[in-house]
Amino acid sequence: MKVNGKNYRAIWMEGEKVCMIDQNKLPFKFSIHYCNNIDETCIAIKTMITRGAGSIGAAGAYAMLQAIYSVDGLDIVHILEKAKKQIDSTRPTAVNLFYATNRVLEAAKISKEFAINEAFAIADECALHGKLIGQYGNTLIEDGYCVETHCNAGWLALVDYGSALAPIYAAKNSGKNIFVYVDETRPRSQGARLTAWELARENVPHAIIPDNAGAHYMASGKINFFIAGADRIAANGDTANKIGTLEKAIAAKYYGIPFYIAAPSSTIDIKTSSGKSIPIEERNSDEVLFYSGKLKNGKIEKMRIANPGSGALNPAFDITPASLITGIITEKGIIQPNVEAIKKLLDDEI
Amino acid sequence: MKVNGKNYRAIWMEGEKVCMIDQNKLPFKFSIHYCNNIDETCIAIKTMITRGAGSIGAAGAYAMLQAIYSVDGLDIVHILEKAKKQIDSTRPTAVNLFYATNRVLEAAKISKEFAINEAFAIADECALHGKLIGQYGNTLIEDGYCVETHCNAGWLALVDYGSALAPIYAAKNSGKNIFVYVDETRPRSQGARLTAWELARENVPHAIIPDNAGAHYMASGKINFFIAGADRIAANGDTANKIGTLEKAIAAKYYGIPFYIAAPSSTIDIKTSSGKSIPIEERNSDEVLFYSGKLKNGKIEKMRIANPGSGALNPAFDITPASLITGIITEKGIIQPNVEAIKKLLDDEI
Repeated sequence: MKVNGKNYRAIWMEGEKVCMIDQNKLPFKFSIHYCNNIDETCIAIKTMITRGAGSIGAAGAYAMLQAIYSVDGLDIVHILEKAKKQIDSTRPTAVNLFYATNRVLEAAKISKEFAINEAFAIADECALHGKLIGQYGNTLIEDGYCVETHCNAGWLALVDYGSALAPIYAAKNSGKNIFVYVDETRPRSQGARLTAWELARENVPHAIIPDNAGAHYMASGKINFFIAGADRIAANGDTANKIGTLEKAIAAKYYGIPFYIAAPSSTIDIKTSSGKSIPIEERNSDEVLFYSGKLKNGKIEKMRIANPGSGALNPAFDITPASLITGIITEKGIIQPNVEAIKKLLDDEI
Repeated sequence: MKVNGKNYRAIWMEGEKVCMIDQNKLPFKFSIHYCNNIDETCIAIKTMITRGAGSIGAAGAYAMLQAIYSVDGLDIVHILEKAKKQIDSTRPTAVNLFYATNRVLEAAKISKEFAINEAFAIADECALHGKLIGQYGNTLIEDGYCVETHCNAGWLALVDYGSALAPIYAAKNSGKNIFVYVDETRPRSQGARLTAWELARENVPHAIIPDNAGAHYMASGKINFFIAGADRIAANGDTANKIGTLEKAIAAKYYGIPFYIAAPSSTIDIKTSSGKSIPIEERNSDEVLFYSGKLKNGKIEKMRIANPGSGALNPAFDITPASLITGIITEKGIIQPNVEAIKKLLDDEI
């Protein structure tokens, strides 16, 4: 997508460097963060300089590449097994990370060449899948719709185009009038910071709302359609996504509003039978107790916002049961959230 | 309640001054704000230096007192009619404000003496009602319960004791082990700032959670009981309360968790037949786009947290339909949220 008239992906390689748009500095500063080696890339994933299921998948693939580049040795598979462990431990919930590192590792068992090609293919596929999700999702959005979305499942999160935002961009570009209610998405405010930034760049009319206001606008008849991304989809359709997605899904069901998950099929973890088996990342409570804002002297300003002495809990994701999901929009089409449909989707070649 | 070993109410009179704990400066600074006249008291209500249904009711009554004190004239009723209009316009949703100004105005039609007594009686009653709500509510809380609450309906909000927090204090003081999940309550963070501050003062074990995490903890079986305050209860039991209450009520219903509203009967507006007729205050979007934190050089630090150029919507309240409410805890007892029970409650003498 374009920033200041120039095409960007959320993450890419330049030589042996992994380059990524620094998502912690947005929307206040657009800058590129460079990771010179696998250790730096792992830190960038963990501290969410890059984030979003697809982008961390690409970051994982590129970090595997850096591991390959770092050694002359013959035992690439052994090196990559070690690298995979290090990379996979950065974020426990999103399956795209494990999916990507696994693909590179398997390719390495054939040859180094294969592994290198595989890493680049993962990022390219992710971008292509975003485009296709946009086309399928656009068929669900009618002219005049008000769409609510949670967190950021835009092009920043999926290398390019996005998952939940891709259908919104496609609808806009096909001439439909739409309006987007952007959930702020505490504690890290990816909605207010990143989704609002993306939508403003693409001239999509929108307003940020406190997470607390979602049901209020649903009750007022203002929301026609809800769309969110996913960090992992279990075999039965249960979906892990940013904390707060579950609450919106329950409210959407209560008010009879269509609730869609948009994600590439790489987000489906067929080995996880249901949402109960998905581990939920618990992040540092400082994300709740302090607010991170603008840059000041090159550092992100932090401000205490909660009672000093009180603790906080900070689960990064929640599980939305399949029964609350109207459908899943993938690069291969729109499916029902159940085992049969999901197995069929994975078996079909695109 | 006690602060630094000394008993305080959230709001009181000293001579002709209205004195209030400055709730915008908490939890970072405990200080008293003084209002010398009705204009200053109205500004304090509007800017939420004092807040919460009961406390702004008391503030309204005291502001009427200031109007009485300000003139020697004989036409007190005329003066108070004007004052009532000014005071009532500060916050449109909470009915306690209109209830209080109305009581003082009606008393003034008998005599100045009556009006003055009435104003003091309103604040005293509010504190007493908090104590009684605590006693009734405590009968619903079992030893070992985890209780979730939204916003601040503590003693800061109800002159003394509190509404939603009063049963929690009563449970703690009667020796029950309880744990409180405190919703942060964006955009003004009354949970993280005020409720956490109150609970810490009373040594009630608690953790702040992002508003987004409520349903997640309900789904995990961690929440036994939900309790919130109210800004206005319609004749049919529909309840206006801080934005986000509706979303929690829907989630509590979905998971079969008891959802209680705690409020003095003065919060019931029998003239409002249902929630549909309750006006919802829309506050300045800066409350969403900027974060207010600590004091710096005597001023509250503000920090932009959202994409510059994006707008925000900021409804202060939402309406929870009676069908989602398990019961209403009042100073006269616990009732079902329906017209018959509410009419009977108002007819009964305490």
